[in-house]
Amino acid sequence: MSDNGFHPPQRTLMGPGPSDVPPRVLEALARPTIGHLDPRFIELMDSVKSRLQQVFLTGNPLTMPVSAPGSAGMETCFVNLVEPGEKVIVCINGVFGMRMRENVIRCGGEAIVVEGEWGRAVDPEAVKEVLDAHPDARHLAFVHAETSTGARSDAETLCALAREHECYTIIDTVTSLGGIPVRVDDWGADAVYSGTQKCLSAPPGLSPVTFSERAVEKVRQRKTPVQSWFLDLSLVMNYWGEGASRAYHHTAPVNALYGLHEALGILLEEGLENAWRRHALHHEALKAGLEAMGLRYVVPEEERLPQLNAVWIPEGVDDAAVRRRLLEDFGLEIGAGLGDFAGRVWRIGLMGHSCNRRNVLFCLSALESVLAQMQAPIETGVAVEAAMAAYADA
Amino acid sequence: MSDNGFHPPQRTLMGPGPSDVPPRVLEALARPTIGHLDPRFIELMDSVKSRLQQVFLTGNPLTMPVSAPGSAGMETCFVNLVEPGEKVIVCINGVFGMRMRENVIRCGGEAIVVEGEWGRAVDPEAVKEVLDAHPDARHLAFVHAETSTGARSDAETLCALAREHECYTIIDTVTSLGGIPVRVDDWGADAVYSGTQKCLSAPPGLSPVTFSERAVEKVRQRKTPVQSWFLDLSLVMNYWGEGASRAYHHTAPVNALYGLHEALGILLEEGLENAWRRHALHHEALKAGLEAMGLRYVVPEEERLPQLNAVWIPEGVDDAAVRRRLLEDFGLEIGAGLGDFAGRVWRIGLMGHSCNRRNVLFCLSALESVLAQMQAPIETGVAVEAAMAAYADA
Repeated sequence: MSDNGFHPPQRTLMGPGPSDVPPRVLEALARPTIGHLDPRFIELMDSVKSRLQQVFLTGNPLTMPVSAPGSAGMETCFVNLVEPGEKVIVCINGVFGMRMRENVIRCGGEAIVVEGEWGRAVDPEAVKEVLDAHPDARHLAFVHAETSTGARSDAETLCALAREHECYTIIDTVTSLGGIPVRVDDWGADAVYSGTQKCLSAPPGLSPVTFSERAVEKVRQRKTPVQSWFLDLSLVMNYWGEGASRAYHHTAPVNALYGLHEALGILLEEGLENAWRRHALHHEALKAGLEAMGLRYVVPEEERLPQLNAVWIPEGVDDAAVRRRLLEDFGLEIGAGLGDFAGRVWRIGLMGHSCNRRNVLFCLSALESVLAQMQAPIETGVAVEAAMAAYADA
Repeated sequence: MSDNGFHPPQRTLMGPGPSDVPPRVLEALARPTIGHLDPRFIELMDSVKSRLQQVFLTGNPLTMPVSAPGSAGMETCFVNLVEPGEKVIVCINGVFGMRMRENVIRCGGEAIVVEGEWGRAVDPEAVKEVLDAHPDARHLAFVHAETSTGARSDAETLCALAREHECYTIIDTVTSLGGIPVRVDDWGADAVYSGTQKCLSAPPGLSPVTFSERAVEKVRQRKTPVQSWFLDLSLVMNYWGEGASRAYHHTAPVNALYGLHEALGILLEEGLENAWRRHALHHEALKAGLEAMGLRYVVPEEERLPQLNAVWIPEGVDDAAVRRRLLEDFGLEIGAGLGDFAGRVWRIGLMGHSCNRRNVLFCLSALESVLAQMQAPIETGVAVEAAMAAYADA
């Protein structure tokens, strides 16, 4: 920092997020700041909202980015939808399900946990049993794409179960949005939150959320005020609402919204279906390479997220040393394990702008090189070829 | 938006924030995103923390930016420090005091209000009376620089009163930090929050906070968990804490922190005292011009903030039309009145990077031109001259 400025190194981000941010988005961030009540800024807000609706595949009028990272989006859903004393069935199959439970408790709800295996999808049968056993439950909360394990749950089935049991659904799509289908309206989902720094490839700091009309109605009918002033949707809605009724609530993060707007634009130009296909394609190639090397996936094939590849760390290999070598020698970030998986699992992200052939081949080469140097028990000289074969087959 | 991108107009921001963001800060925002657990990012966090300590004039180890705008910084102070059932004396002399009261209620505290006149400083005598009358009060909350009125309160005296009555202090310095002295350690303040988009001249989106050691101790001794998971300092501290103990809490807004770091660097290069003098200087010139035009200040001279100039809108003048003309014809943003002052007051900001001679003269010229065109009852042809005379006298 010779000039006292911070000049970050150029990394390749293949962890669990943030993912690489495209130059177009970085450039948008640096456009001149304007006022959060400027008519031109209101236009931008409308456009962000419309783009988010397209990406969430929803017509929900209450669709907007919360002015804080994904954890605040999670909290927005819980503190607004859940009233003290209400029963919430929470599916836990990783760190973010645990965080959901913590949110339920802190807003005075009663959490009924459906404990699932880490690295597996949420089991709809187990959820159905708990729903049957708790006819007074008001909400079902689950993580669509568990960032801590790479498991993908069947949101459509879980939402259908919730509806049969007259429960509202609260769904974490932080890692799924933009990488695999998230169909808010088709699912009949009620409160859905996401993040910007995964498959949307904007910097971290905002959390897109969308609420169904019936969820909004429930928020309107609350008997107790929302415990958070900052996240109180009855107030935030006035700012993100329609035209003339807009009232100042808090100062929106203007430049961060320039970035999100651009990132959503890039995704919509590509098309959601094309983006999903791209994530699937590069996942297949990465998987072929990793498996050729002898690495094993944590999650069974049919429950895997293409954008988050969790693999077991080979016996005897020093987790931290490998990640440090990758970062220092190759400028490549992959993710460590979280919670129960700390020290046992690597999480290799293929999210948004990071999801491309160059990154797949680079990651396989770098990982092979570092592991070979450490005399880890892997096959060498086959990973890149296996990946290329997968591309050829696609 | 022909290319689907959003290209904001170039404004001159002289409202109550955001203020103009210097090109150096915009450029920093656009640097490549790196991971929130990258060792280089941890270095940046340490540097941001150290710069914030210098700007808050504090040695408090718990000094950091909350990953959300000022309102979330306010909420961080209240939800962590105040436990359900505790009495909080809240001074209200504008919109942000009202918001403090709302925060107390939502975290289960009991708010005892010291009602003050809008446009005046908080009256220490009135505060003393209420403190005497409520010996069981645990906290005193007040706004140092009321953004809705432009009034500056005597934080030093209020903090001393609070200490005499064994109360913790919660202080809003959103608009004061960087514009007038904020001396956290000298005051013996306990929980202080600010914003980035006022006199720090970074984009909105983060909220610097600092907690005294005894405030941290109180948070540690809480009998009930903090109602917000996202803002729970017992968790956030682990992420912003020292070296090896850092634990993932939420994904930090990486690029926004690049911007804040650069903005703090610019302020520290100038020097706090020089920045305070600059705000005072340009305020004197703007005031001379506005008064020469015949506009009257809302706040008595000795209680005025140099960085926020609230003036009464002349009789018969259409508030919205004037601000629209300024914005459309001159690209100049000034602020409308808030709450009780809506339609009656303009708020002209001279904050951070916006606080310079060019802006003072431009604002006076533009405002005079628009008001004259609308046949408002003002003196014309004297404002700029009066401002220049003030500069010459300085």
